[in-house]
This record gives sequence, C-alpha cells and structure tokens, in this order.
Amino acid sequence: MNDTAILLIDHQVGLQALVKDFDTVGFQNNVLALADIAKELKLPVVITASVPEGPNGPLMPEILKMFPDVAVVSRHGEVNAWDNPEFRAAVKKTGRKQLVMAGIVTDVCVAFPALSAIEEGYQVFAAVDASGTFNEVVRYAAWDRMSQSGVQLMNWFSILCELTRDWRVHGPAMTDIILKHLPEYKNTMITFNQSSNHSG
Amino acid sequence: MNDTAILLIDHQVGLQALVKDFDTVGFQNNVLALADIAKELKLPVVITASVPEGPNGPLMPEILKMFPDVAVVSRHGEVNAWDNPEFRAAVKKTGRKQLVMAGIVTDVCVAFPALSAIEEGYQVFAAVDASGTFNEVVRYAAWDRMSQSGVQLMNWFSILCELTRDWRVHGPAMTDIILKHLPEYKNTMITFNQSSNHSG
Amino acid sequence: MNDTAILLIDHQVGLQALVKDFDTVGFQNNVLALADIAKELKLPVVITASVPEGPNGPLMPEILKMFPDVAVVSRHGEVNAWDNPEFRAAVKKTGRKQLVMAGIVTDVCVAFPALSAIEEGYQVFAAVDASGTFNEVVRYAAWDRMSQSGVQLMNWFSILCELTRDWRVHGPAMTDIILKHLPEYKNTMITFNQSSNHSG
Amino acid sequence: MNDTAILLIDHQVGLQALVKDFDTVGFQNNVLALADIAKELKLPVVITASVPEGPNGPLMPEILKMFPDVAVVSRHGEVNAWDNPEFRAAVKKTGRKQLVMAGIVTDVCVAFPALSAIEEGYQVFAAVDASGTFNEVVRYAAWDRMSQSGVQLMNWFSILCELTRDWRVHGPAMTDIILKHLPEYKNTMITFNQSSNHSG
Amino acid sequence: MNDTAILLIDHQVGLQALVKDFDTVGFQNNVLALADIAKELKLPVVITASVPEGPNGPLMPEILKMFPDVAVVSRHGEVNAWDNPEFRAAVKKTGRKQLVMAGIVTDVCVAFPALSAIEEGYQVFAAVDASGTFNEVVRYAAWDRMSQSGVQLMNWFSILCELTRDWRVHGPAMTDIILKHLPEYKNTMITFNQSSNHSG
Amino acid sequence: MNDTAILLIDHQVGLQALVKDFDTVGFQNNVLALADIAKELKLPVVITASVPEGPNGPLMPEILKMFPDVAVVSRHGEVNAWDNPEFRAAVKKTGRKQLVMAGIVTDVCVAFPALSAIEEGYQVFAAVDASGTFNEVVRYAAWDRMSQSGVQLMNWFSILCELTRDWRVHGPAMTDIILKHLPEYKNTMITFNQSSNHSG
Amino acid sequence: MNDTAILLIDHQVGLQALVKDFDTVGFQNNVLALADIAKELKLPVVITASVPEGPNGPLMPEILKMFPDVAVVSRHGEVNAWDNPEFRAAVKKTGRKQLVMAGIVTDVCVAFPALSAIEEGYQVFAAVDASGTFNEVVRYAAWDRMSQSGVQLMNWFSILCELTRDWRVHGPAMTDIILKHLPEYKNTMITFNQSSNHSG
Amino acid sequence: MNDTAILLIDHQVGLQALVKDFDTVGFQNNVLALADIAKELKLPVVITASVPEGPNGPLMPEILKMFPDVAVVSRHGEVNAWDNPEFRAAVKKTGRKQLVMAGIVTDVCVAFPALSAIEEGYQVFAAVDASGTFNEVVRYAAWDRMSQSGVQLMNWFSILCELTRDWRVHGPAMTDIILKHLPEYKNTMITFNQSSNHSG
Repeated sequence: MNDTAILLIDHQVGLQALVKDFDTVGFQNNVLALADIAKELKLPVVITASVPEGPNGPLMPEILKMFPDVAVVSRHGEVNAWDNPEFRAAVKKTGRKQLVMAGIVTDVCVAFPALSAIEEGYQVFAAVDASGTFNEVVRYAAWDRMSQSGVQLMNWFSILCELTRDWRVHGPAMTDIILKHLPEYKNTMITFNQSSNHSG
Repeated sequence: MNDTAILLIDHQVGLQALVKDFDTVGFQNNVLALADIAKELKLPVVITASVPEGPNGPLMPEILKMFPDVAVVSRHGEVNAWDNPEFRAAVKKTGRKQLVMAGIVTDVCVAFPALSAIEEGYQVFAAVDASGTFNEVVRYAAWDRMSQSGVQLMNWFSILCELTRDWRVHGPAMTDIILKHLPEYKNTMITFNQSSNHSG
Repeated sequence: MNDTAILLIDHQVGLQALVKDFDTVGFQNNVLALADIAKELKLPVVITASVPEGPNGPLMPEILKMFPDVAVVSRHGEVNAWDNPEFRAAVKKTGRKQLVMAGIVTDVCVAFPALSAIEEGYQVFAAVDASGTFNEVVRYAAWDRMSQSGVQLMNWFSILCELTRDWRVHGPAMTDIILKHLPEYKNTMITFNQSSNHSG
Repeated sequence: MNDTAILLIDHQVGLQALVKDFDTVGFQNNVLALADIAKELKLPVVITASVPEGPNGPLMPEILKMFPDVAVVSRHGEVNAWDNPEFRAAVKKTGRKQLVMAGIVTDVCVAFPALSAIEEGYQVFAAVDASGTFNEVVRYAAWDRMSQSGVQLMNWFSILCELTRDWRVHGPAMTDIILKHLPEYKNTMITFNQSSNHSG
Repeated sequence: MNDTAILLIDHQVGLQALVKDFDTVGFQNNVLALADIAKELKLPVVITASVPEGPNGPLMPEILKMFPDVAVVSRHGEVNAWDNPEFRAAVKKTGRKQLVMAGIVTDVCVAFPALSAIEEGYQVFAAVDASGTFNEVVRYAAWDRMSQSGVQLMNWFSILCELTRDWRVHGPAMTDIILKHLPEYKNTMITFNQSSNHSG
Repeated sequence: MNDTAILLIDHQVGLQALVKDFDTVGFQNNVLALADIAKELKLPVVITASVPEGPNGPLMPEILKMFPDVAVVSRHGEVNAWDNPEFRAAVKKTGRKQLVMAGIVTDVCVAFPALSAIEEGYQVFAAVDASGTFNEVVRYAAWDRMSQSGVQLMNWFSILCELTRDWRVHGPAMTDIILKHLPEYKNTMITFNQSSNHSG
Repeated sequence: MNDTAILLIDHQVGLQALVKDFDTVGFQNNVLALADIAKELKLPVVITASVPEGPNGPLMPEILKMFPDVAVVSRHGEVNAWDNPEFRAAVKKTGRKQLVMAGIVTDVCVAFPALSAIEEGYQVFAAVDASGTFNEVVRYAAWDRMSQSGVQLMNWFSILCELTRDWRVHGPAMTDIILKHLPEYKNTMITFNQSSNHSG
Repeated sequence: MNDTAILLIDHQVGLQALVKDFDTVGFQNNVLALADIAKELKLPVVITASVPEGPNGPLMPEILKMFPDVAVVSRHGEVNAWDNPEFRAAVKKTGRKQLVMAGIVTDVCVAFPALSAIEEGYQVFAAVDASGTFNEVVRYAAWDRMSQSGVQLMNWFSILCELTRDWRVHGPAMTDIILKHLPEYKNTMITFNQSSNHSG
C-alpha cells in the first residue's frame, strides 16, 4: 500500500457516452468506489482529462469534489496520457511503483499508458470495472493486449482488499467504502446489525 | 397527477437478496427514483413491509429517511399487502384511483396487490424497473399475468413523464430527479451547460 | 386453496434431455419445489407419464418417493394427457376447479392439456419454471399461446404464496419449502437467526 | 399507402445518449431507413423535437437534410408531442388515418402520442426498431403497454413492404432503400448481378 | 388433421442471408422438420417463392426434392403471398381451414399472409421456429402483431404433436421425424434400445 | 491424488449474497460436489471462514455437517487466508503440494491465496465453478490474473476425473458423486438401468 | 497434412446429454464436419469410446458408418484416453505428430489427452466446436488450461483450411464438406451458380 | 505510423454471409472505418480477394471506390494470403514492419497470414472488430490462437489513436473519421458545438 498510486484517466462526462459495456449507473458507482479507495486509504492520486473544455466535457463532478487539492492534468492533444510530460511528472512525483489505472475508453486511455508504464518498469494494475468502452468485443481485445504485456486485470473490490489486507487495521475504511458502493454487502450488514439489536 | 398514489411494497434489505433480474446498484437507483418522483411531486405514498423485524429486514434506509411522516404499514403475515386492512385503509385514504405499485418480489408483492386493486376498480401501473425478482423467466411470467389482467407496465422514467407532462410546469422537479437518477442525461446537461458558459 | 389441484405431467428422466431452457439442477429444484407445495399443503396431486417403460424413462424418482399413494397414470399413446380418460377421471375426482400444471415439454405436455382444461371451464395456472422445453423461442411461443387462451403463467414461488396467503397460518410449511428450495432466502434466515442467537 | 403518414419524434442527437437497447450505428441506420421510406414513397412526414436548442440537441442532421421543406415542430415543454397543438395540427393536416410513429425514447416519446392517437381513432403503428430507449426491460414494458392499447408493433422493413406490396410497382424505391439500409440483401444482389454479368 | 394444410413461403437460399435470429444449421433443420411433417402425414402443401430466378434465389433444394408433385407458386411482385391469386387458389383448393405457415422473413412473408388469412376466417398457426428474420427485436414485434390478431404461435414439434395426438396411431411417422430432426430424442432412443438389446 | 488437498474458503451464507455470476441453486450444487469429492476420495480438507459470527455468516451448514472432524479456521481480519498462520499451518500439515481452491469471492478469497501459494511453490488449481463473485467482468478478470500467474482453472467434474482417472478403481465414488450432483448423467443412468431391467 | 491425425474421443450418444454449450443439431453438424475432413482428406483417424455398452451409449451411428475400417478403441475404465495403451498405440501407429482432438466433454475427454500429448512432444490442436461440455464457464476454463499448456484452439473450418491450403488442389473435397456442413456458404454457391446458368 | 501498413483481406460481399458474430451494418462500419484510417493517414494498403469472380463475390464496392489506385491481389486458390507471392510482394513493397490485418473470416483469412507474418518477424495487429466469423466460439478460439503467437488484438478506434497519438497533429483526420464512423462521439460534438454557437 505504501507503493501504490491511483491514476484516474479521462473519466469525463462527454466521454461516458462512448461507454456501452457497462450500465452507466453501475459504472459511475465503480469509478467512485475506486476514487473512494484512494481517498480513504490516502493514496496519491493523479487525475487527467483530455481537452475538458471541449466536447469530451469536464471530469465527473463527484471526482473533482473528492480531490480538491489534486491538480487535474489537462491534456491538449496527447491521446496517451503517458505522452504528456506533466502527467508523467505527476506520476513520478508520487514515488510509487505500483500503478492502478482506470479510464475511458479502456482500449485507449487505459491500455496505452498501461503499456507505456510497463515498459518503464512499473507494475500496472488495470481497474477493469472502473474502465469502460464501446462494447464487449473491444473490452476483451484490450484486456488481452494488456494481459499479454504483463498488466494485471483487477476490479475495485479486489484492489481494495489487496491494499488493505486486514479488517482489524482497515475495517472502518473498508466498511465505509462497502456501505457506499456495494449494496449487497450493505444489505447483509443492516439485517445482521438489526437482528443483533432486536435480540440483544 | 391529482389522482395518483405511489405504493412501495416490501423494498426490504433482506428481500433484496432475492432480486436477481437487476444489478443491485441499478435496481436501488430505480427504486429511489420512483420514491423521488413521489416526493418531488408531493404524491401520497403508502409504504409497507413484511415482518421487517425478521430476516426480511427493514426497508431500505434511504426510503425511510425520505418519508419521515409516512407510517410504514408493518404486515405480520399477509403476503398480499391488499389482504392487510391497514394497508387497504391507507390506500383508500389517499383518495386516489390511479395506483403506481413497485416492490419485491414482482411476481408476488407487486402482482398480487395489483390484481386485487384492479378487481376493485383501481387503475394500476406496475413500475417494473423498481420491482425485482428471481430471474427473467419469473419476471416475464409475472408481467404477462398482470398485463392480461389490465395492469399497465411502466418504468420510473415514463411514470415521471406521464405525471408531469410539461417541462414548463415541472421542469425543476424533473431536472432534480434526472440529475440524481439518470446519469446519461445528467452528463449531457453538464457538457451542454459548460459549453454554453465557455463560449458565452 | 380448497379448490386447487397440482398436475405433474411427464417429468420423466429421459424427457429431461429435451429441456434446454433451464439448467438441469435448477430445473429439478423447481419441479421438486412444486411437488413439495402439493405435499406440504396436502393438495390433491395427479401424476402422469408417457410410456415410462420406454426411452422417455420413468418419472423422477424423487417425485415417486414423495407421493407413494398416488397412482401414476401411465399413458400409452395419448400425447395430450387430457385425451386419456384415466387422467381426466383423476382430475375430475379431485373435485378442484383450479388446476396448476407443469410438465415436459412446455409447448406440448403443458400447453395441450392447459388449453383442453380451459375449454372445459377450469381455471388453469401453468407453473412455467417447473416446465421445460427445447429453447427460449419455443418457450415464449408456448407462453403466448397459453396466455392468449386464458392460462395464467406463474412460478412455483408465487403459486406457494397464492395458496398460503398468510405466514401466520402457513408459516411452517412455507419455511420448510423455502429452506429446501430457495437458498437465497435460506441464507438470509441462517444469518439472521445466528446473529439473534449470538447477541441474545 | 394513401392513408399513411410518418411521424418522427425527438430523434435528437443529445437524446441518443439515452438509447442503450440498440447499437448506435445500427439504430441510426434504422431511423434513416424509415425516413427514406417516407421520402421515396412521398408520404407526408411530421417531425418534432423537444427543446432542440437545449441539451437534447438538434435533430439528426441527416433527417433535417432529407426533408428541407418540412417545418420541424419545436416543442418547448410538452413531453407528449400530442399535447402540442402545432403537432396535432400538422398530423391532422396530412389527412391520413394510419400513423407510423418512431422516436426517442420508446416508452415516452413514442408510447404517449401512440396512445393518444389511438384514443382519437387513428390506427397506429410503432416502428420499434427506429425507436430506442434505456434498456430491454423498459423496451418490452413499453411494447406491452402499446400493444394492449391496440398499437401495432412493426419494423422498418415490414412497414416498407406493407406500404409497397408489389415489387412491380415499387421495385425501384424498394431497391434504393434496401441498397442503402439492408446490407445483407445488398450483398446478395451484388453477387447475383456480377455472376449474371460474368457468365453472360 | 383432416383440416390442416402446410404453407411454405419463400424459404429461398438467397433470402436465408437475412435470417439472423437462428443459427442456419438449426434453422434449416426446423424448416425441413416442418416439411417432413407435411410429407409423413400426407398433408396438402402449398409452396411459393418470390422471384426465385433473381437474387432471392431458388427454394432450398431439399424442399423441392421432397415435394416433386407440388407446383411452386412463383410470385413476380406480390410481397404478401395472399395477394397472389394463384397462391390463394392453391390454398383454397386444399379445402383446409387450418393453415400452418412458415417462411422468410417472419415479419413480412409470414405475418402478412397470416393476417390476411385470419381476416378471411381461416385459423392460422405460425410455425415460428421454421420462420426467420433479421434479429430478435423484429421477431418479437412480428410475434406480437400476429398474436394480437389471433394467430397462434407454435413450433414444429408441437405442431407435429397437435396433428398426431396418439403414438399408437402415428408412432412410425413421429419416430421417423424425431430421428431425423430431434437429436436429443434420437440419442435417448439409441441408448435405450441398445441397452435393451444388450441385456436381452 | 496422493498429493492433493482441497481448500474451501469463505463459503459463508452471508457472503453468498455477493455471488451473482451463478444461479444460487446451481452454485451450491457445485460447491457441495467439490466437498463430496474431498469426502469420497478421503482427501485432506482445509476449511476457513472470515469472521463467521458477523454479517458474513456461518459456513454453509451442509459443509459443516460433511466434515465434523475438520476444525474450521476462523479468521478475524486477514482477507487473504494465506496471511493467517493457522491456515498456512493447516495446509502445510496436509503435506500435499497440489492445492485445489474454491471460495467466495473468486477475485479475492480464491485469487489471493492462489497467488500466494504459487509463489511458495505449490501447484494450484482454482475450482472456478465452485467459486463465485459479483459478475462476469470480475470473474474473467480474476481468471486472467490467476491464469497468468500459473494457476490452472478447472471445474469440479474435471477435478473429479483428474483425481480418479479410472472407473474400475473409483467407479463407486464417481457414481455416488455424479448421482448427487450431475442430474444429466443421473438421468441417463436411470433410463439405461431401467431398460436393462425391463428387457432382462 | 501429411503429419496430421484426427482423434475422435467419446462422441457417444449418451454423453451428448452432458453437452449444453452448443445446440445439439449444430454440435452434431460440427462433429460430422470434422469427421468428413478426415474422410475426404484421407487422414488417419483414431476413435475411442468409454464403456459404450453402458449408459454412455454407443458412438454416434453416423461416425461408425463413416469409418467402417477403423477399430474403435473401447476403454473400460480410463477417463483419459491417453492412459489406455491401445489408444496410445493407435495414435503412435499413425506416425503423425500433429494431433487434432475433439470429444465430449471438452474439459476432460479433450483436455486430458491434449495435455498428455503435449507433454510427449506432440503438437496438439483442439477442435473446440466439435467438442462440448456442461456450460460456458467450464468451456472457457478448459480452453484456458489447454491454451496455457500450448494446445492450439481451432474450429473445424479453420482446420479444414489449414490442412488444404489451396482450392486448386483440394477444391472438390473442400466444396463437398462445405455443401454438407456450412449452409451459409452453400446458399451463396447455389444462388451464384443458378444466376450463372440463367444468364448463360 | 511511418512503419505501418493496413492489410484488407477478403472483405467480399459473398463472404459476408458467413459473418454472424457482428451485426452487418455495424461490421461494415468498422471495416470502412479501418479503411478510412488508411486513407486519411495515407498509410500503404494491401488488398486481396479470394476468387472474386466466383460465389465469394467482389470486394465491398465502398472499399474499391476508396482506393482506386490500389491493385487488388486476386488469389485463385491460396486460402492463406501469405501463400500468394503477389500478396507477399505487395506487403514487402510497403517497406513497413507493423502490419494491421483485418478480414473475413477471422479464424482463417486473418489468423493464417497473421501467424505467417509473425514467423517472418513482422509485428502484427489484428483489427478484431473489422474481422468477422461464424460465431463467438470461433472468434474467441481464433483470438486465443493469435494472441498466444504474439499477435496483438486491437479495434479500429485504438488503432486510429495508436497511429495518431496527438490531436494537435492529426485532429482533422481523427475528427473526419469519428464523424463518419463513431456516432456517439459525433452526437456529443454536435450538441457541444451547437450550444457554443447558441450561447456565443
């Protein structure tokens, strides 16, 4: 956990119109869960957007609100965020060697910097359920390309667990995130706690 | 709109474990959108739960918070809410003849009172995306049974539009609900508004 | 409930090879749940099989074991069970006017007697998740044909609830059936009860 | 064909972000096929848009280009186009009694005016593959509601065939539309014609 | 059975390129099963094709071979076979009042004559698994339109069973058709017969 | 087979609410089939649960009943069972080098210890149909991560066959397990045996 | 092609009841297409069956008829055909080093001998569309296991093309197989040839 | 980009009847998008067709029109384009070492030359959404075979982005291609631009 940074790439409101491999409500929940992991575990975050003043639109307002102190790297041409010196500098400045990446669209905004970072010796984890694209064919082609290059495919929940590892240490943070983003688990917790109260 | 009441039936946290025909995040969003319709449009609401102190669990806490003044009808045996005199009285007291119903599970907690209300001369609308059940086979069998009895199958968005009919009158309420529950539309609005600002 | 009989038609082990619209483990669970409804609620049961000594094979042994006192009507030619005088006599002898039918395959062994019984003035309920057939195209065509003729499409759980109507009266039977056939509900019950015990 | 008008309702670029039950490329092809039917067969067309200067966006530019002489009815509040007097007048002015409707979203912008027109005695055909909405659950609920009210569900190809009825009379128009919008048929025609030429 | 005729409409090799709602191997098996029903049960058959010398191509050669004595009605313009006097005459000549129809594409070549025949007082059965079209959206819209007009939706196997009704009378024909077209049943029969032999 | 141990990880009733990539009835059947393999083949079993007295709930009661002599390792914080010394000791004590792992959820409770064990030189087999998680996206990401690390993905039936290898040696155990958990095979066996008897 | 043998493993009629990842009609077509490749290209064939006199049943009769001179290796216990000395001898006798394998079920009867043959230095190709199993989860786990071990996943059509490579040399054999097993191609050929004739 | 060539293989109108893993309208859009990438970025293109004067039919006319100066390599027997000396010469003549390949069918016309080119030291990218085949089983088997051999699986949009890398350099070309082939992005651009104009 001391060696991990979270990279949120192009989660812009206009680009979400391109995401068809997830239901939008569920997709935004996944993205915000990943953002909450960064926030709750106080991980360094690097955020970037591609021409946010154009049709791509601004970043999801919820993300901007969560990280008021993080300067968003606005790119004005580079498709691959890794081609942007400011972005690379921000990543380098975190001092972390394990990069969790998520973005829109999976096959470009995630896959390209993931492959670039792998080449430079980083360990890269693609948060695949916080990354969206045109359809399942494109998703699985992008997965294959990343996987064959050494990128590890993970989901926000397994990232949370990989980073925390122990409920005794990180229980409150884990519970907070679960209550906000994993309603199946939240439901079980409510029933359980209520019945404890009732019978107590 | 002056003749409509919203009936929320058994949206309990324990019963949600039975809902497999929707992703839980998306399903809860649909349920809360319907609840927000009632709240924003100040429609009478009747809420009921089946043995909420047992394994069925309490109602979704978000619903309870939204309607602090609505007394939840706790049933202690009746499967069909319409068999419960307190529930029928609450419906009758609304004075409305158009009933929008949603609940868990579709084939029982929605279909049974829907058929009962139809028999008593009400016009019934099942909010099918705020109602969940075991799988698609059960869902479509329940739809067919309701439809053949005269129940109209609708979704929360079309219910919202049917009730409001005119953006000039209900624009703010409609926008509020859309911003909270329909992210595709929200995204378009943000991009649009931003670009208006930028270029202004 | 005093007017209902359960008709189990051709749930033979050989014919199950024709059922492709359900996973077999789940399908058998649905069939046995319906059989358990009959048994627990002491409803009259009529069971029939088509040439069980041939490749169609014998009835599911679990069904035979559950109803040792029910004489299985072996048909030796009639595709539509309703064409068999012994079957019709057995149905008539129950004195019930509401017939719940399930069988293999939906489009023939359920749809044919369902339409025949409707014509003779019975009220017919097809237990569609305890009835299987070749694929979804055939299933939905058979549903449409039955539905347009007045057959009501139901699933075993809604049939159970329609028949019992009140947990205070039929709680033990309902719980027994749920514990055996609805693991999602069973899981919730176990967690709930355990937590009550722990905290008690 | 002398009694048919085509109504294109809210096929606006911003609203297409709400359409998730079709692939966008395929959906636009269906919409334009329907528009081409109107154009090639010289049917009266009524086009409307909801607040096109706002986030809903303008109509698909291809549609505007196809019907330069049709005045688009801009609605500034009415959700149901039928509530707009200008729209109703435009429909009435066509003098046609068979209305083919398509739009975004199916459950609102098609279903509402379809039901209104049925009530006023029109014969209504919903062009369901030129109409899109949030997901399949909403689509099929809207279909059921329309169908139960007497709306006939059709696709653009069957509408084309219903209107033309005879290749000897309408062959060129039919072929033009097929070559532009039905590539499977176009492919067969190319192969066939080439082989005729080669061997001739 | 004495009142039934089978109508095979436009099962042409070129038109099969339009059928995407079935796998082609399985679809052809369904079509030939229906044709075999007609042949084995000696039912009158009416066969038609639309411009078979053009890109639509000739009828499936297997069908032509099965009915050497049936004159194929070649239509040279009429989309709806019922608009063709020769076709109507052929149907009338059968003297049958129950028409089983199948064809390509479902929404046009089956739905149009089905609705026409219903209007003229025939009882119509659409063989929906021997009829194909562009995709499932079109299929289910066509089903709904036919069903609401009184057409009964059936599959080849239930048609076979409806016509034969008794294995003692029609066993050999039923077995022949099953062995050729229903491999799941064939497999069971082989295993059963072998084991009988082995143990005998 | 002399080098294999079965590890059952967190098959707790509360956690099953998180499993959405399998139907629950089928999933439990898969889990119990794997447990039966261990039992019938007398393989060492290691069972663990995460905070079973909390909302995760106790292990499936069927598992507890099957292995009365196996002490369940209760973890009180470690997400990755491999981080728990008691669990590692239990595994080590088996003396086996081939570990079959299954659990809830696949991406955490199976993938984490699988990767840990691989690193320590074990040969690891993930029983993927006795392991469940949130959805298919998460499932296939977890599969890819495990597969790329050298974990072999198997299902309970292939594990059974890999361990037994010869019906002459393990026929009775294999048959027992199949009769309980593979109804397609059971059905075939019943028909076959009956026909042998009949004809004998 | 001079180095390839085809291995058909346990395509028995009883075992086909276990195959749920393919429609049976389509699956049998794939299996027979692979068999026809062997026959038309005169490749050595090794055929085996597991206890064919028991409930697994005999091999598909079509296969037996195609290869009257091939002695079927009947195994009486070995799950992995490679464990059977007679089978290994038959493979060895072919003198071929490239083995194409297909069978029921994919995860056992194909995967096990595939891995065994890889270990012994053979080049192995799994004909995945002529191999079937319980469901897609099992299929893709088996694919992954084979692929990671070096087995190449192919389908019958690509195997045909890999073996023939040139229509000028193998045109008649390729055409024969396509006409029997690939109806989409057959349809195109018929239309093409007819139009050539008509216009000639 | 200076090292890339685009290879379009057998996108013939007759062969498209074999493509069932994509909707034809969407598939043609993908193919033409890839062709437009070549055209807009002035990349060398190699085009080939297999016996285009036979039933395979000619290349899509849109492709022929786009590249009037490219001589199509007509193969008269070689299944694998790489076996054709003229094709290999055309590829070699481009002087490029990075080959983007697309074609019909994926498992043969793409996979075979892809593997051949890999063996000769080229870097190969399969444009998987501009390549089609019989069904998803065949598609994913072909993907696996290519991926394991080192072929990178990409889609036309990620290829476009990989080649351009910077909107400031290639903005106009990128925008042109997007406006023609990516309607979701086009819609966003129209709404954005309109709102800028309105408010400007």
